[in-house]
This record gives sequence, C-alpha cells and structure tokens, in this order.
Amino acid sequence: MVLATGDIVNIDIRAIAERSKQASHAVARLNEAQKNAALDAMADAIEKNSAAILRANADDLTTASTMLANGEITASTFERLKLAPSKLSEMAHSIRSVAALADPVGRILERTQLDDGLIIEKVSCSIGVLAVIFEARPDAVTQIAALAVKSGNAVIMKPGREVEGTATALVETLRCALRQCNIAEDAINLILGREAVQQLLSISDLVDLVIPRGSRQLVEHIQGNTRIPVLGHADGICHVYVDAAADPTMALAIIDDSKTDYPAVCNAAETALIHEGIAREFLPQLATRLEAKKVKLLGCEKTRAILGDVVESVANWHTEYGDLVLAIRVVRNMDEAIDHIHRYGSSHTETIVTNDVNAAARFLNEVDSAGVFHNCSTRFADGYRYGFGAEVGISTSKLHARGPVGLDGLTTYKYVLHGEGHVVGEYRKGARNFKHKRLS
Amino acid sequence: MVLATGDIVNIDIRAIAERSKQASHAVARLNEAQKNAALDAMADAIEKNSAAILRANADDLTTASTMLANGEITASTFERLKLAPSKLSEMAHSIRSVAALADPVGRILERTQLDDGLIIEKVSCSIGVLAVIFEARPDAVTQIAALAVKSGNAVIMKPGREVEGTATALVETLRCALRQCNIAEDAINLILGREAVQQLLSISDLVDLVIPRGSRQLVEHIQGNTRIPVLGHADGICHVYVDAAADPTMALAIIDDSKTDYPAVCNAAETALIHEGIAREFLPQLATRLEAKKVKLLGCEKTRAILGDVVESVANWHTEYGDLVLAIRVVRNMDEAIDHIHRYGSSHTETIVTNDVNAAARFLNEVDSAGVFHNCSTRFADGYRYGFGAEVGISTSKLHARGPVGLDGLTTYKYVLHGEGHVVGEYRKGARNFKHKRLS
Repeated sequence: MVLATGDIVNIDIRAIAERSKQASHAVARLNEAQKNAALDAMADAIEKNSAAILRANADDLTTASTMLANGEITASTFERLKLAPSKLSEMAHSIRSVAALADPVGRILERTQLDDGLIIEKVSCSIGVLAVIFEARPDAVTQIAALAVKSGNAVIMKPGREVEGTATALVETLRCALRQCNIAEDAINLILGREAVQQLLSISDLVDLVIPRGSRQLVEHIQGNTRIPVLGHADGICHVYVDAAADPTMALAIIDDSKTDYPAVCNAAETALIHEGIAREFLPQLATRLEAKKVKLLGCEKTRAILGDVVESVANWHTEYGDLVLAIRVVRNMDEAIDHIHRYGSSHTETIVTNDVNAAARFLNEVDSAGVFHNCSTRFADGYRYGFGAEVGISTSKLHARGPVGLDGLTTYKYVLHGEGHVVGEYRKGARNFKHKRLS
Repeated sequence: MVLATGDIVNIDIRAIAERSKQASHAVARLNEAQKNAALDAMADAIEKNSAAILRANADDLTTASTMLANGEITASTFERLKLAPSKLSEMAHSIRSVAALADPVGRILERTQLDDGLIIEKVSCSIGVLAVIFEARPDAVTQIAALAVKSGNAVIMKPGREVEGTATALVETLRCALRQCNIAEDAINLILGREAVQQLLSISDLVDLVIPRGSRQLVEHIQGNTRIPVLGHADGICHVYVDAAADPTMALAIIDDSKTDYPAVCNAAETALIHEGIAREFLPQLATRLEAKKVKLLGCEKTRAILGDVVESVANWHTEYGDLVLAIRVVRNMDEAIDHIHRYGSSHTETIVTNDVNAAARFLNEVDSAGVFHNCSTRFADGYRYGFGAEVGISTSKLHARGPVGLDGLTTYKYVLHGEGHVVGEYRKGARNFKHKRLS
C-alpha cells in the first residue's frame, strides 16, 4: 500500500503492519528461484515504467528547488534526488545483482546429533517485518526492497520527505511487479511522514526490526521511542594509528586515502594517532602530503609543537567532520592510542599501520570496533568491498549484525529438531543419555 | 562492588558501569587458559567460603519465611532460595563445567581473500558489559558470572530482592577469586533494588546488553524503558500439532511429555492442535492418558463435542498455564494449525507429530518460532539438551540470539582486515580489482 502525504493523519498504520506481517510469512516461504524471478520482474518494471517514475521525480525536484533556494536543503541533497534514465538502468542493474547473490535463507549453520535418531539443525531464516527509515535517495528504495525480497522479509519503508513522490512511484512499480509474480504485494510497503513513523514504532508485536539510516540524532530518537530492536548506525569516527614500527610511506598513503578518498562518508578517518617515537619525523611529511590535498589539520599540543601554531587545536575529539579536516594526536604508546579510540571513537573502524606483527595482533585483538584493520585504509569498511554484494547499511550496534549489513544481517535462525518420538522424561529418568556429537 | 540495600538512594550506578566497562576490556583480552583459571578459582572460592555464604542465606531465609507467612512469596520461591553445602558443591561443579566448554571468543567464523595480500576475517569477540536482571535463585548468580567470564564480558547482576543477602555473599566471594587471579574484580558487579535498575537502563553508552529473566511484564517494562538492546524472553506458549498422518501412540507420548514432564517451565506445551481427520478417534485416548496424570483439559467447541461438556471451553488461547492444564483445538488442516500458532503463540517452540515427511518439512519451514520440532517433545528446547553446556536463558527475541542462549549468544563479532598498504583509491580508479575469494 502506498500512502499519499495528505492521508497521513487518517491512515491506519497498524493495518499496514498487519498486512506486512501476513505478506512476510508468504515471502519467507518462497524458494530461491521464486525470489530471483520476483527480483527480475522488479528490475524489468523499473525500466518499463521509467516515464512515470521520472515524472514523479520532476515534481519532487520542483518542490526541492524551492527548498534549495530557501536554504532548507543542501545542494548535495538536491543533487542526490535527481533521476535520469541512466540512473534508472543502474537501479535495475543493482536489483538484478541482488538476485545473483546466494540465498541467505535455509542455510544449515550447525548440525548436531543429540542422540540416536535425534538431530538438531540451526537453520538461517528470514526475520519477518523490517521497517527502514532512510534519507532522500531514490536508489535506496530499490536497494532496500531488493535486499528485503531476497532475504524473505517484508519491508515498510519511510523515505526522506524530499523524495516522497519518487519513492511512491517506485514502490507502486515494485508492488505491481510482485503482483505479476503472484507474490503478496504487501511485502513492500511505503509510509510517509513523521507521524506514521511514530505509530509504526509502537507496533512491537508486528514489526521485528527497525533500521534507521541517517543522523545519530535520528537513530537515538528511535532507540528511545520503541521496544522494537533497532539496528543503528551512530557516527563514523574512524582512527588511523601509526605505530613506531610503521613504514612511513605506507602510513602516508593510508592516512591520505582514509581521509581524502571520500571525506563525507562514515568510513573516512577523522583522527590520526601518531606514536611519539616517529612523530617528529613523520608529522611534517604528513602535513605536506595532506596540505597538497587541501586538508585542514587540527592537532594536540604535541602536534602543534612540531608543526607550529598554524595547526589549530582540537576542540572535540568526538567530532565527525565529514570533510577535509583531520585531527592529529601524538600518543606515548599503543595503550594510549587504544584508550583514545575507546574513549572518543564510535566503534566503527580503526586501522593500525605497523610492520611489527605483535603490535598489530594486539591492536586487532584489543580494539573494540566493528572493523579493526592492519596496514590498509579505513575506507575498505563497506559491504561491497567486503564481498557482500550489497548492504542495507553499516551497523555500529554490537548486537545481531555489526559493520556492513548485507543479506546475512537480514536473517535470523531457528533450531529445527528431528526426532522419532523422543521424549524428555526418558533422559530425566536416565533411561537414555545425550550424545551431543557435532556433525557440521 | 557490592551495594547494600540501605545505600541504594545514594550510590552512583554510573560509576559502577564505568568500572565495569574498564573491566570488560581487561576480560575481553584474557586467553582461554586465563579464563579457565579464573573459573577454577571461582569454584574453589565458593566451596571454601561456604560458611559465610550459608550464614547470609540463613538471614535471607528468616526474612523470606515472614514473607511466606504473609503470602508475599510462594512456597516454591521459598524452596528455591534455600542453600545447603550440597547445593554449593553443585554450584562449584557447574562453574567448572563452564570452564570445560570451548572458548567462544576468537573463533574465525568466515575468511575471505578480497585481493592479493588483503584478507578479511569475521572473528567472534565478547560484547562488553552485560546487565542481567534475574529471579530469586542463588545458583543464577554463579551460573551468570561463570558464563560472563568465559565469554570475556563484564556483568552487572541485579538479583530478586528475596536473595539479596545470599547474592551479595556469593558476588563478594567471586570477586575475591578474580582478585587472586589478578583479574579486574569489576568484571562481576552486583546492584540491588529497582531504582538502581532504572538508573542502569539509562546508561546506554556503557551497558551493551540487558538480559531480563522473569515475567513478560518485567521484560516489556525494560524494553520500553531503555535504548540498550534487550535479549528477552516473553511467554512460553508452546504447541503440539498432531497431523492426520501421526502415529497416535507417539502423539500421546509426546503430548504427555510436553505437558507433564515439568509443567511450570516455559518449554512445556500449553496447547494441542489436533487434525480433524483423526480427532474423533484420538481425543478420547488423549483424555484417558492425561486424566490419569491429573491434567485438566480445556477445549474448543469441536473438542467438547467429542469429549463432552466435562471439558471446559478455552477462555484465552494466549494463556501460559504453567500447570497441569492443556488447551485442545481441533483444526481443519495444517494451515489452520500454523495460523493458530502464529496468532496465539509466543514463537518459543512448536512440534509436529506426523509420519508424512512432506507435511513435516512444510511445518518446520513455515512455522516462525525459535524451535520447530518433528516427532519429539517441546521439552527438548533447552541449552543443556541442545548441547550448549549451559544457558543464560531462552530468547524469544528474533534478533541476535534466538532460543536457548549459551556462550555463543554472549559474543558478537568484528571484521579483521589484514592488508599490505592497500588503499581504496586504487580500486576506485580501476588500477586494482577485488577478487572476493571465500577461503573458509
């Protein structure tokens, strides 16, 4: 069901959630071929219905250009809203690439013989109803819908307000494709507006997981206002630690890439921690390299003592700059680096540059982040680069799914027990005994 | 740190959480031998300090006997409070058996070559700080503490009020054992009283997971009052579905065991769903079998038409009786049985009795519960019987850990990436390409 903005006050979000739950049971039962056929139909439908989708997008852009003129949205948000035929082809291609991924449902994760004729299997299965609240990006609609279908879940999407018309056209197109495949169209639902989200967050008996994509404020607001589990992404305050035993050339390249390859994204580094044993030699080289790329440097007192007062001091080590700004701190040793990361980081991704394998092992073991890297850029923290094919987001939550969340993160498991009339009383009486033999 | 009840108003729960977080980093770093040595020391200490623990327990029992007389607690709660030297030996034995389990931390769950010299590993690791809120059982203290240490987590425990003195003596004993092993004693903390719990639930930046054990009301209250992820256990409304192709003798034995082996626990069955094709023959046999065991039968209209009006009707299919009471419903087919389970169940454990392998496969696939069983009793849903060695509880949450939660459920994972100076810019420019070769 697609709701127009004008209906928000009167619609019954609970009814949508109930239909989603019904549809979730239906999509959970689909086999791999059926899900892939649905994804192919969804991709085809996006291409065939491109004229209507582009018209809806043009309307969104008209509204958005006024918002841009009034300073309500940024130029980059406006740019991300824009669709073109080539962009629709990319979206269709991306849906087909999800079809090409392995089915995450029905995998036997563990298998144990409990006794003769009594075998337990831990089997991956879909979660149920996902609620995804996301930013104003049209391609998020098709990406999230494709991941939901492939993982056998129903999804209720709430897009950013600037993209509501485009999202409505896209969801109508995708639901039509599901109908053509005789799949419950309520596997893909759209709701619009904040009030609808508030209502949805109260329906903990039907919605199984909320995935908010957006600011930390949004994630924290949602965590504080629902009993539904939340798979959230806080900040991306990533660190590069340059150890005393680092290759300086490698360290320069890794800091450069971690900071400048794409500064606006969450896996870009915000802070470099430099071992004091190499700081005096290394920092001037780093300053030269980064200033050539127009990176503004901020530093601790020791950094400023080496690089001079042109480097401003750091106001807050918790800051995610998301821009060509790097905070630098000279640390006495790895303990101080790890302590800094635990104190100021967001448990996203941290990397150590060192040729000392013991130092690397200790860093990788002790740092409590979703990604801990050795001699490579923080920018590798990404579902595509990890080989997941697609991601629904990056989780800085520790529970359930951590780091880039692909199809596996959209599944849970159940225990399937195969018996031949086994009852517990016989084991309690000692007539039978468990064998507990791990089979796989 | 152990807090006496009288201090509750003034103590700083945040300070305890901060010390727990510090300690969690220390226990996360321990290797398997160090953790096992700590567990052995904990077990020894319980035995050596038995006199003091039993004295504290005697004081709890004095208070509890007044509560029992006033009807504030039940006779079974009073019984569960009682310690004796033999019970302390059992608790020590149980701690040592956790030491014997495989280390859940540091296991390489997946390994993928992203490119030459660039290898990613998904590695199990501890979660951090656990908060466990539990009932008035002394052995829960040692069981939870042992599982926390073995999984490399710090734990803050909040026991039921009737067991506060005993829990305090036990925790002091366990902390003393940690000190002797040069392990941060703040890995095991105790807080007392409801107000302390309320404060703890607000500390989402330090506490990583809350595990409430107790009533559904408790679990829902906690889910509604914290941003910390909650691993909860709702009701145990388990079902036995007797298919048209069931062996009646097996079905009788499985319903009998599922209902009567231990009716008070969550994996006991509350409802039997009987296919109408066999109901007329099967129900009288079932009534004879269960009435001999003093089980009170409740039924739907069709059941009462067969068994007669001596069978009362069912007031609410959502009820967890936890007693020798069984609700019976005659269903037209498996779809109706599955629909009943999804509508009235608690997603805990359901079993199908049938000799039809296709029917079994469909039931196991379509029923959305933590445990789905074929031809065996619901009572097998238990960490010990599953071969986990020990469990911290049974989760009816779908996220993170589902079903009996053993050591694995107290871990999360991180992605460890080993490189040789790899940067993302080269892949973006097309100078290098990912290989994504799964190694294990």
